[in-house]
Amino acid sequence: MMIDGHTGLYTDMYQLTMAQAYFRDGTSETPAVFDYFFRRIPFDGGFVVFAGLADFLDIVERFRYGAEDLSYLRSLGFDAGFLEYLGRFRFRGTIASVREGEIVFPVEPVVRVEGRLLEAQLVETVLLNFLNFESLVATKAARLRLAAGPRLLSEFGLRRSHGFGGIHASRAAVIGGCDTTSNVYSSRRFGLRPAGTMAHSYIESHGDELEAFLSYAESHPDGCIFLLDTYDTLRSGVPNAVRAAKEMERRGRRLYGVRLDSGDLAYLAKETRRMLDEAGLAYVKIVASNLLDEHLIRSLLDQGAPIDLFGVGTRLATGAPDGALDGVYKLAEVGEEPRLKLSESLTKTTLPGRKKLFRFLNGRGLFEADAVALEGESEVPRMVHPFEPGKSMRLAEFRKEELLVTVMEHGRRGFEPEPVDRIAAFARERLALLPVEHKRFENPHIYKVGLSERLAELRNGLARLHREEN
Amino acid sequence: MMIDGHTGLYTDMYQLTMAQAYFRDGTSETPAVFDYFFRRIPFDGGFVVFAGLADFLDIVERFRYGAEDLSYLRSLGFDAGFLEYLGRFRFRGTIASVREGEIVFPVEPVVRVEGRLLEAQLVETVLLNFLNFESLVATKAARLRLAAGPRLLSEFGLRRSHGFGGIHASRAAVIGGCDTTSNVYSSRRFGLRPAGTMAHSYIESHGDELEAFLSYAESHPDGCIFLLDTYDTLRSGVPNAVRAAKEMERRGRRLYGVRLDSGDLAYLAKETRRMLDEAGLAYVKIVASNLLDEHLIRSLLDQGAPIDLFGVGTRLATGAPDGALDGVYKLAEVGEEPRLKLSESLTKTTLPGRKKLFRFLNGRGLFEADAVALEGESEVPRMVHPFEPGKSMRLAEFRKEELLVTVMEHGRRGFEPEPVDRIAAFARERLALLPVEHKRFENPHIYKVGLSERLAELRNGLARLHREEN
Repeated sequence: MMIDGHTGLYTDMYQLTMAQAYFRDGTSETPAVFDYFFRRIPFDGGFVVFAGLADFLDIVERFRYGAEDLSYLRSLGFDAGFLEYLGRFRFRGTIASVREGEIVFPVEPVVRVEGRLLEAQLVETVLLNFLNFESLVATKAARLRLAAGPRLLSEFGLRRSHGFGGIHASRAAVIGGCDTTSNVYSSRRFGLRPAGTMAHSYIESHGDELEAFLSYAESHPDGCIFLLDTYDTLRSGVPNAVRAAKEMERRGRRLYGVRLDSGDLAYLAKETRRMLDEAGLAYVKIVASNLLDEHLIRSLLDQGAPIDLFGVGTRLATGAPDGALDGVYKLAEVGEEPRLKLSESLTKTTLPGRKKLFRFLNGRGLFEADAVALEGESEVPRMVHPFEPGKSMRLAEFRKEELLVTVMEHGRRGFEPEPVDRIAAFARERLALLPVEHKRFENPHIYKVGLSERLAELRNGLARLHREEN
Repeated sequence: MMIDGHTGLYTDMYQLTMAQAYFRDGTSETPAVFDYFFRRIPFDGGFVVFAGLADFLDIVERFRYGAEDLSYLRSLGFDAGFLEYLGRFRFRGTIASVREGEIVFPVEPVVRVEGRLLEAQLVETVLLNFLNFESLVATKAARLRLAAGPRLLSEFGLRRSHGFGGIHASRAAVIGGCDTTSNVYSSRRFGLRPAGTMAHSYIESHGDELEAFLSYAESHPDGCIFLLDTYDTLRSGVPNAVRAAKEMERRGRRLYGVRLDSGDLAYLAKETRRMLDEAGLAYVKIVASNLLDEHLIRSLLDQGAPIDLFGVGTRLATGAPDGALDGVYKLAEVGEEPRLKLSESLTKTTLPGRKKLFRFLNGRGLFEADAVALEGESEVPRMVHPFEPGKSMRLAEFRKEELLVTVMEHGRRGFEPEPVDRIAAFARERLALLPVEHKRFENPHIYKVGLSERLAELRNGLARLHREEN
């Protein structure tokens, strides 16, 4: 029932109609270069955490057309010659990418795909599908982490995630900054830490709340968290949790935490903390959930709510309120000639040529600016604003890093997939190098991304040429 | 790589910790009834198109724990006895549901799951995951259809959908009202009609726009659509499309359409139409895309834009701007005793007991009101407002239908899965029976959903009892 064995069909119809046209007009094997980049940062934020690379490469490696797929495509009217070609199709291209977990910005090429025109075109949809989604969720998780500080953060979104999109939502959430997830499938598959509490139905099925708590504690001596709001948080939930915790103490155990899932979380957290402390249960943690996002978490903490763990579901797993990263995949070169897509405004005109990406770090070791350059350039002493011709910036005094590394060569991955906790650690490290003014939620300072002078000249020259022709 | 063979892990961790607690305290086999319902209609709309049922049942039928899953759960600390139980676990419950494609409303039970407490609890996450997502997208598609009227509507969202959520987004889009989808995988799997045009990269790779059009036409004699905005829509795209269409005519073929993908779509559509008509190409259709939604489509048509086909991507496949339907799954009965979850407000208090759902149709055969009743009630002469005690409505004069039908009995589906085009036709039929005032986009009239007097008494009595206890 899933795409295994049908990876080649997980694409848009027009990729196949274009592929057939390339096949028939003899351009299918022409070398081509495509770039993946986005234009707008979601959540009105100042940065994006790049994620989804490993899942994309995983599918590309296994991208093929089985007998059933071919017979389906035949039924749609595709040519026999083309279908024979597809039957032998393997992706043999070369992919350069920033590392998963890297902090990235609009305009810059985040992934570069080189190969034959047909193969590079055919993987567009699956590339966009995974990179756009996982980067969206990883970015949201990083924002939640900025709001939550050192407190625990768990992803709870599977029930509201988009079908099997939930599989990758949990992975991306951990890359971006969550400690744990409720998603057991993804925990097993990606080596994440699963976590969970209990539902209202558990309490209701026992009728008596105290009895439900005691029974659960019996079954889960470690890491037990009681849900407090089934009947009345402060009049029933907390008193019963205190009784159960005391009973656990008598048996030499300790209650891990209690969960607030409705009502005024700031008020309830303070009252619950006070009641727990008065009962000598200062060690019991307070968990909060219920439509949280980075703004609500920050507001709760600003109000002094003594919350130790935040459970975030819907708004994380769906990347609300944006719901999508606007990443696109654009042709940059074909037959070794640079190409571009024109637009009425420069901001939507693409960057031609085979490119590289530099990051410049200032004297404090923090990210200062990024520059997109042509492949042949090893130094970028000055960069120009991508859309405002007069603006430029000197870069000579900064230390630089090259961000695009080869991750697949002629269809083969050059490395073992990195464990998610290592990607998450890398994301944390890199985010720490981004100056705070780019991380604030309100009107974050725009990070500078520019073009090398040679790239800008190439783009402007090609644009002029096309305009003169029309 | 997908969930096949690991269906039982596609759940929240707390379902498994609760299941273990039920197993240990002896309540796992107690009969229980759960309801699926939602509280808020997305998109500020007046109705929801129910979808996702077949995909949910498909997983439930195959919900099990393999040896690898059990050894993973063992590593998380689950008990040997419980794991042995899980190894034999099959869902043997009974599920009643409204038909896929039905029009549904807040508060009412849309799906009812009956079984042993443990099994009914364990399928919660996968139920919510599929029903919430597909209903969201089907509802969005129905709104797009309302805006587009008889014009063609195609779903193009795979590149922005949430990972493999794209598989089900396309299915739900067609249920709700799309004619075609770009998603080839889902087309094959669900028998949808795939459709596609071409990308900017196709034009750019040929360098010359006219040559690109001619080459594509050569390869795709039928259903060929040219993309016009790679260089300049009116100065380059349309003139070249006219030349290519004339060349096609000389070969006895007809260009199907041209696509506008940027700029002022209303203005460009009018100019393009005029230029095509002047060239004797009145039969060539105009396709429009670029971040469309129901409001933009309506605005384009209000401006008289001569558009024949709308391609809708991101905002359909992600269910923007809401991104989630807030459906929940709540315990209604356990051991044959009705249960409820209290809340400070009646609106969040659940409806206890094993229930049924009636729809009442007025003299014109249109939907008038829905009433939730207890299983034993065959007549509901009057219903009361679910939250406002004084309000009631006489129903005796209306014809009624019972909406919940058994779709799975003791773990087995009672019917072959319906083809998607039949579900889509049913949705269209039912939506036609919903009075227009519930279908408008601005402040739609709220459809009346009430409770039978017996159900209201049961709920109010239980709520009083719980309040007195605390």
